[in-house]
Amino acid sequence: MKQPERLARTVIYENPWVNLYADKVRFPDGRTIEKHHILEFEKEAVAVLVENIRGEILFVHAYRYTTGSIEWEIPAGGVDSGEDIIQAAKREALEETGCQTADHQLLYTYHPMNGISNKVFHIVKARATTESGEFDRNEVKAVKWLAPVEIRRMIAERTISDGFSLTALLLYFFRNEN
Amino acid sequence: MKQPERLARTVIYENPWVNLYADKVRFPDGRTIEKHHILEFEKEAVAVLVENIRGEILFVHAYRYTTGSIEWEIPAGGVDSGEDIIQAAKREALEETGCQTADHQLLYTYHPMNGISNKVFHIVKARATTESGEFDRNEVKAVKWLAPVEIRRMIAERTISDGFSLTALLLYFFRNEN
Repeated sequence: MKQPERLARTVIYENPWVNLYADKVRFPDGRTIEKHHILEFEKEAVAVLVENIRGEILFVHAYRYTTGSIEWEIPAGGVDSGEDIIQAAKREALEETGCQTADHQLLYTYHPMNGISNKVFHIVKARATTESGEFDRNEVKAVKWLAPVEIRRMIAERTISDGFSLTALLLYFFRNEN
Repeated sequence: MKQPERLARTVIYENPWVNLYADKVRFPDGRTIEKHHILEFEKEAVAVLVENIRGEILFVHAYRYTTGSIEWEIPAGGVDSGEDIIQAAKREALEETGCQTADHQLLYTYHPMNGISNKVFHIVKARATTESGEFDRNEVKAVKWLAPVEIRRMIAERTISDGFSLTALLLYFFRNEN
Protein backbone atom coordinates (compact mmCIF):
# COMPACT_ATOMS: atom_id res chain seq x y z
CA MET A 1 0.00 0.00 0.00
CA LYS A 2 1.51 3.31 -1.13
CA GLN A 3 -1.18 5.82 -0.17
CA PRO A 4 -3.42 6.42 2.84
CA GLU A 5 -6.60 4.38 2.30
CA ARG A 6 -10.17 5.14 3.38
CA LEU A 7 -11.75 2.25 5.30
CA ALA A 8 -15.01 3.96 6.28
CA ARG A 9 -16.73 7.37 6.10
CA THR A 10 -19.16 9.15 8.42
CA VAL A 11 -21.01 12.09 6.86
CA ILE A 12 -21.19 14.95 9.34
CA TYR A 13 -22.46 17.67 6.99
CA GLU A 14 -22.98 18.15 3.26
CA ASN A 15 -23.77 21.50 1.67
CA PRO A 16 -22.78 23.38 -1.52
CA TRP A 17 -20.31 25.43 0.59
CA VAL A 18 -18.53 22.73 2.54
CA ASN A 19 -18.75 18.99 3.23
CA LEU A 20 -17.44 17.63 6.50
CA TYR A 21 -16.60 13.93 6.92
CA ALA A 22 -14.94 11.79 9.61
CA ASP A 23 -13.10 9.02 7.78
CA LYS A 24 -11.41 5.91 9.11
CA VAL A 25 -8.04 5.91 7.36
CA ARG A 26 -5.19 3.40 7.20
CA PHE A 27 -1.76 4.92 6.57
CA PRO A 28 0.97 3.12 4.58
CA ASP A 29 3.05 2.28 7.64
CA GLY A 30 0.09 0.50 9.26
CA ARG A 31 -1.32 3.09 11.62
CA THR A 32 -5.12 3.48 11.50
CA ILE A 33 -6.81 6.77 12.38
CA GLU A 34 -10.39 6.17 13.50
CA LYS A 35 -11.62 9.72 12.82
CA HIS A 36 -9.64 11.69 10.24
CA HIS A 37 -11.71 14.83 9.73
CA ILE A 38 -11.80 16.08 6.17
CA LEU A 39 -13.33 19.22 4.69
CA GLU A 40 -14.26 18.80 1.05
CA PHE A 41 -15.11 21.81 -1.08
CA GLU A 42 -16.90 21.50 -4.40
CA LYS A 43 -15.88 25.01 -5.42
CA GLU A 44 -12.32 26.01 -6.22
CA ALA A 45 -11.24 29.63 -5.70
CA VAL A 46 -9.15 32.14 -7.61
CA ALA A 47 -7.19 35.26 -6.61
CA VAL A 48 -6.23 37.84 -9.21
CA LEU A 49 -3.04 39.90 -9.46
CA VAL A 50 -4.28 42.85 -11.54
CA GLU A 51 -1.45 45.05 -12.81
CA ASN A 52 -1.82 48.50 -14.39
CA ILE A 53 0.44 50.26 -16.89
CA ARG A 54 2.52 51.78 -14.03
CA GLY A 55 3.25 48.32 -12.56
CA GLU A 56 0.90 48.85 -9.61
CA ILE A 57 -1.27 46.06 -8.18
CA LEU A 58 -4.99 46.34 -7.41
CA PHE A 59 -6.14 45.86 -3.81
CA VAL A 60 -9.54 45.70 -2.11
CA HIS A 61 -10.38 46.51 1.49
CA ALA A 62 -12.50 43.41 2.20
CA TYR A 63 -14.84 42.75 5.10
CA ARG A 64 -13.85 39.41 6.72
CA TYR A 65 -16.44 38.01 9.08
CA THR A 66 -14.27 34.96 9.91
CA THR A 67 -11.52 37.04 11.46
CA GLY A 68 -13.55 40.07 12.57
CA SER A 69 -11.49 42.43 10.44
CA ILE A 70 -11.23 44.48 7.26
CA GLU A 71 -8.24 43.32 5.24
CA TRP A 72 -6.24 44.73 2.37
CA GLU A 73 -6.31 41.85 -0.11
CA ILE A 74 -6.21 41.22 -3.82
CA PRO A 75 -9.56 40.37 -5.49
CA ALA A 76 -10.56 36.72 -5.00
CA GLY A 77 -13.57 34.44 -4.94
CA GLY A 78 -15.10 31.12 -5.88
CA VAL A 79 -15.09 29.55 -9.32
CA ASP A 80 -18.78 29.13 -10.12
CA SER A 81 -20.14 26.01 -11.74
CA GLY A 82 -19.96 26.36 -15.54
CA GLU A 83 -17.12 28.88 -15.30
CA ASP A 84 -13.45 28.24 -15.99
CA ILE A 85 -10.70 29.69 -13.80
CA ILE A 86 -10.00 32.65 -16.11
CA GLN A 87 -13.68 33.58 -16.41
CA ALA A 88 -13.98 33.49 -12.62
CA ALA A 89 -10.87 35.67 -12.24
CA LYS A 90 -12.25 38.25 -14.69
CA ARG A 91 -15.67 38.27 -13.00
CA GLU A 92 -14.29 38.55 -9.45
CA ALA A 93 -11.95 41.41 -10.41
CA LEU A 94 -14.86 43.26 -12.03
CA GLU A 95 -17.32 42.66 -9.15
CA GLU A 96 -14.90 43.58 -6.39
CA THR A 97 -13.10 46.51 -8.05
CA GLY A 98 -15.10 47.67 -11.09
CA CYS A 99 -12.02 47.19 -13.28
CA GLN A 100 -11.99 45.35 -16.58
CA THR A 101 -9.08 42.96 -17.12
CA ALA A 102 -7.37 41.21 -20.05
CA ASP A 103 -4.41 38.90 -20.83
CA HIS A 104 -5.22 36.53 -17.96
CA GLN A 105 -2.58 33.95 -17.13
CA LEU A 106 -2.83 31.11 -14.61
CA LEU A 107 0.34 31.25 -12.49
CA TYR A 108 -0.14 28.59 -9.83
CA THR A 109 -2.55 26.05 -8.31
CA TYR A 110 -2.21 24.79 -4.72
CA HIS A 111 -3.94 23.41 -1.64
CA PRO A 112 -4.05 26.05 1.13
CA MET A 113 -4.81 23.60 3.97
CA ASN A 114 -3.93 20.06 2.90
CA GLY A 115 -3.80 18.79 6.48
CA ILE A 116 -7.60 18.78 6.64
CA SER A 117 -8.99 19.93 3.30
CA ASN A 118 -8.91 19.26 -0.44
CA LYS A 119 -9.65 22.96 -1.18
CA VAL A 120 -7.98 24.24 -4.37
CA PHE A 121 -6.70 27.81 -4.82
CA HIS A 122 -5.60 29.29 -8.16
CA ILE A 123 -3.50 32.42 -8.71
CA VAL A 124 -4.12 34.38 -11.92
CA LYS A 125 -2.29 37.42 -13.25
CA ALA A 126 -4.06 39.97 -15.48
CA ARG A 127 -3.66 43.40 -17.04
CA ALA A 128 -6.14 46.16 -16.17
CA THR A 129 -7.89 47.70 -19.17
CA THR A 130 -9.86 50.16 -17.00
CA GLU A 131 -8.56 51.55 -13.70
CA SER A 132 -11.73 52.21 -11.71
CA GLY A 133 -15.47 51.58 -11.65
CA GLU A 134 -18.42 50.64 -9.47
CA PHE A 135 -17.85 47.72 -7.13
CA ASP A 136 -19.82 45.57 -4.66
CA ARG A 137 -19.94 47.65 -1.47
CA ASN A 138 -21.34 44.74 0.52
CA GLU A 139 -18.05 42.89 0.18
CA VAL A 140 -15.54 45.67 -0.35
CA LYS A 141 -15.12 48.95 1.56
CA ALA A 142 -12.53 50.54 -0.76
CA VAL A 143 -10.26 49.84 -3.73
CA LYS A 144 -6.74 51.11 -4.34
CA TRP A 145 -3.62 50.66 -6.47
CA LEU A 146 -0.36 49.96 -4.66
CA ALA A 147 3.18 50.20 -5.99
CA PRO A 148 5.50 47.19 -5.49
CA VAL A 149 7.63 49.16 -2.99
CA GLU A 150 4.56 49.70 -0.77
CA ILE A 151 3.53 46.04 -1.06
CA ARG A 152 7.04 44.91 -0.12
CA ARG A 153 6.87 47.13 2.94
CA MET A 154 3.46 45.67 3.94
CA ILE A 155 4.88 42.14 3.71
CA ALA A 156 8.04 43.12 5.62
CA GLU A 157 5.80 44.61 8.34
CA ARG A 158 3.52 41.51 8.25
CA THR A 159 0.38 43.54 7.69
CA ILE A 160 -1.04 41.30 4.96
CA SER A 161 -2.75 38.57 6.97
CA ASP A 162 -4.84 37.02 4.20
CA GLY A 163 -2.90 33.95 3.06
CA PHE A 164 -4.34 33.88 -0.46
CA SER A 165 -3.11 37.46 -1.11
CA LEU A 166 0.19 36.87 0.68
CA THR A 167 1.02 33.79 -1.39
CA ALA A 168 0.00 35.45 -4.66
CA LEU A 169 2.03 38.60 -3.95
CA LEU A 170 5.11 36.64 -2.85
CA LEU A 171 4.81 34.60 -6.05
CA TYR A 172 4.56 37.83 -8.05
CA PHE A 173 7.87 39.08 -6.59
CA PHE A 174 9.47 35.63 -6.95
CA ARG A 175 8.61 35.54 -10.67
CA ASN A 176 9.89 39.07 -11.24
CA GLU A 177 13.21 38.23 -9.56
CA ASN A 178 13.86 34.74 -10.98
CA MET B 1 -21.66 49.64 11.95
CA LYS B 2 -18.08 49.10 10.78
CA GLN B 3 -17.74 45.29 10.90
CA PRO B 4 -19.86 42.33 9.86
CA GLU B 5 -22.07 41.42 12.84
CA ARG B 6 -23.36 38.02 13.96
CA LEU B 7 -27.14 37.98 14.46
CA ALA B 8 -27.53 34.23 15.16
CA ARG B 9 -25.49 31.01 15.20
CA THR B 10 -26.42 27.40 14.38
CA VAL B 11 -23.96 24.80 15.68
CA ILE B 12 -23.44 22.11 13.04
CA TYR B 13 -20.44 20.33 14.63
CA GLU B 14 -18.03 20.89 17.49
CA ASN B 15 -14.88 18.84 18.02
CA PRO B 16 -11.27 19.48 19.10
CA TRP B 17 -10.23 19.32 15.42
CA VAL B 18 -12.79 21.60 13.82
CA ASN B 19 -15.99 23.47 14.67
CA LEU B 20 -18.54 24.17 11.96
CA TYR B 21 -21.19 26.86 12.36
CA ALA B 22 -23.81 28.48 10.13
CA ASP B 23 -24.13 32.08 11.25
CA LYS B 24 -26.65 34.75 10.27
CA VAL B 25 -24.47 37.79 9.53
CA ARG B 26 -25.27 41.42 8.73
CA PHE B 27 -22.65 43.21 6.65
CA PRO B 28 -21.86 46.92 7.05
CA ASP B 29 -23.63 47.96 3.85
CA GLY B 30 -26.88 46.34 5.05
CA ARG B 31 -26.87 42.96 3.32
CA THR B 32 -27.76 40.01 5.54
CA ILE B 33 -26.45 36.49 4.85
CA GLU B 34 -28.76 33.88 6.39
CA LYS B 35 -26.17 31.07 6.46
CA HIS B 36 -22.54 32.18 6.49
CA HIS B 37 -20.63 28.94 7.08
CA ILE B 38 -17.61 29.31 9.32
CA LEU B 39 -14.93 26.79 10.28
CA GLU B 40 -13.35 27.59 13.62
CA PHE B 41 -10.15 25.85 14.69
CA GLU B 42 -8.97 25.82 18.28
CA LYS B 43 -5.47 24.79 17.23
CA GLU B 44 -3.10 27.03 15.35
CA ALA B 45 -0.43 25.46 13.11
CA VAL B 46 3.23 26.09 12.42
CA ALA B 47 5.54 25.31 9.48
CA VAL B 48 9.30 25.32 9.96
CA LEU B 49 12.00 26.47 7.53
CA VAL B 50 14.99 24.47 8.82
CA GLU B 51 18.28 25.62 7.30
CA ASN B 52 21.62 23.79 7.55
CA ILE B 53 25.15 25.19 7.39
CA ARG B 54 25.23 24.85 3.57
CA GLY B 55 22.04 26.97 3.22
CA GLU B 56 19.89 23.98 2.32
CA ILE B 57 16.30 23.62 3.50
CA LEU B 58 14.81 20.49 5.10
CA PHE B 59 11.91 18.74 3.33
CA VAL B 60 9.64 15.83 4.21
CA HIS B 61 7.77 13.54 1.81
CA ALA B 62 4.41 13.64 3.60
CA TYR B 63 1.39 11.38 3.13
CA ARG B 64 -1.66 13.57 2.45
CA TYR B 65 -4.96 11.77 2.73
CA THR B 66 -6.97 14.90 1.86
CA THR B 67 -5.49 15.16 -1.62
CA GLY B 68 -4.62 11.49 -2.20
CA SER B 69 -0.94 12.25 -2.66
CA ILE B 70 2.55 12.26 -1.20
CA GLU B 71 3.90 15.80 -1.15
CA TRP B 72 7.34 17.36 -0.72
CA GLU B 73 6.71 19.83 2.07
CA ILE B 74 8.52 21.51 4.91
CA PRO B 75 7.80 20.13 8.41
CA ALA B 76 4.52 21.44 9.88
CA GLY B 77 1.83 20.60 12.38
CA GLY B 78 -0.50 21.82 15.08
CA VAL B 79 0.44 23.91 18.10
CA ASP B 80 -0.62 21.73 21.04
CA SER B 81 -2.35 23.16 24.07
CA GLY B 82 0.27 24.33 26.58
CA GLU B 83 2.89 24.81 23.88
CA ASP B 84 4.03 28.09 22.40
CA ILE B 85 4.68 28.50 18.67
CA ILE B 86 8.45 27.98 18.94
CA GLN B 87 8.10 24.84 21.07
CA ALA B 88 5.65 23.42 18.53
CA ALA B 89 8.03 24.24 15.66
CA LYS B 90 10.91 22.50 17.42
CA ARG B 91 8.79 19.44 18.26
CA GLU B 92 7.31 19.10 14.75
CA ALA B 93 10.73 19.39 13.10
CA LEU B 94 12.10 16.70 15.42
CA GLU B 95 9.12 14.34 15.01
CA GLU B 96 8.93 14.63 11.24
CA THR B 97 12.65 14.71 10.39
CA GLY B 98 14.66 13.55 13.42
CA CYS B 99 16.65 16.81 13.32
CA GLN B 100 17.30 19.02 16.31
CA THR B 101 16.87 22.76 15.73
CA ALA B 102 17.92 26.01 17.40
CA ASP B 103 17.68 29.81 16.95
CA HIS B 104 13.96 29.71 16.13
CA GLN B 105 12.47 32.91 14.78
CA LEU B 106 8.79 33.62 14.05
CA LEU B 107 8.67 35.13 10.55
CA TYR B 108 4.97 35.52 9.80
CA THR B 109 1.41 34.80 10.96
CA TYR B 110 -1.55 34.62 8.56
CA HIS B 111 -4.98 33.18 7.83
CA PRO B 112 -4.76 30.59 5.01
CA MET B 113 -8.52 30.58 4.23
CA ASN B 114 -10.14 33.72 5.64
CA GLY B 115 -13.18 33.38 3.35
CA ILE B 116 -14.55 30.57 5.52
CA SER B 117 -12.15 29.98 8.42
CA ASN B 118 -10.37 31.67 11.32
CA LYS B 119 -7.46 29.14 11.06
CA VAL B 120 -4.06 30.65 11.96
CA PHE B 121 -0.78 29.57 10.34
CA HIS B 122 2.67 30.59 11.63
CA ILE B 123 5.97 30.39 9.72
CA VAL B 124 9.12 29.82 11.79
CA LYS B 125 12.73 29.77 10.65
CA ALA B 126 15.34 27.66 12.50
CA ARG B 127 18.90 26.38 12.26
CA ALA B 128 19.58 22.64 12.21
CA THR B 129 21.93 21.43 14.94
CA THR B 130 21.77 17.81 13.76
CA GLU B 131 21.21 16.84 10.11
CA SER B 132 19.43 13.48 10.35
CA GLY B 133 17.71 11.13 12.77
CA GLU B 134 14.74 8.83 13.28
CA PHE B 135 11.39 10.26 12.19
CA ASP B 136 7.70 9.28 12.29
CA ARG B 137 7.25 6.90 9.36
CA ASN B 138 3.47 6.98 9.73
CA GLU B 139 3.41 10.59 8.60
CA VAL B 140 6.56 10.90 6.55
CA LYS B 141 7.94 8.63 3.83
CA ALA B 142 11.35 10.30 3.43
CA VAL B 143 13.38 13.35 4.44
CA LYS B 144 15.84 15.34 2.33
CA TRP B 145 17.82 18.57 2.18
CA LEU B 146 17.30 20.76 -0.88
CA ALA B 147 19.43 23.63 -2.14
CA PRO B 148 17.71 26.97 -2.90
CA VAL B 149 18.33 26.51 -6.65
CA GLU B 150 16.38 23.23 -6.59
CA ILE B 151 13.55 24.78 -4.56
CA ARG B 152 13.35 27.71 -6.97
CA ARG B 153 13.04 25.24 -9.84
CA MET B 154 10.27 23.31 -8.04
CA ILE B 155 8.30 26.53 -7.55
CA ALA B 156 8.90 27.62 -11.17
CA GLU B 157 7.62 24.20 -12.28
CA ARG B 158 4.66 24.45 -9.82
CA THR B 159 5.44 21.11 -8.18
CA ILE B 160 4.99 22.32 -4.61
CA SER B 161 1.24 22.06 -4.14
CA ASP B 162 1.08 22.40 -0.35
CA GLY B 163 0.17 26.02 0.32
CA PHE B 164 1.79 26.19 3.76
CA SER B 165 5.18 25.13 2.31
CA LEU B 166 4.76 27.30 -0.79
CA THR B 167 4.03 30.44 1.24
CA ALA B 168 6.89 29.78 3.69
CA LEU B 169 9.42 29.13 0.91
CA LEU B 170 8.34 32.18 -1.11
CA LEU B 171 8.69 34.24 2.08
CA TYR B 172 12.16 32.78 2.60
CA PHE B 173 13.27 33.94 -0.85
CA PHE B 174 11.52 37.30 -0.42
CA ARG B 175 13.40 37.96 2.83
CA ASN B 176 16.73 36.95 1.31
CA GLU B 177 16.20 39.31 -1.62
CA ASN B 178 14.74 42.33 0.18
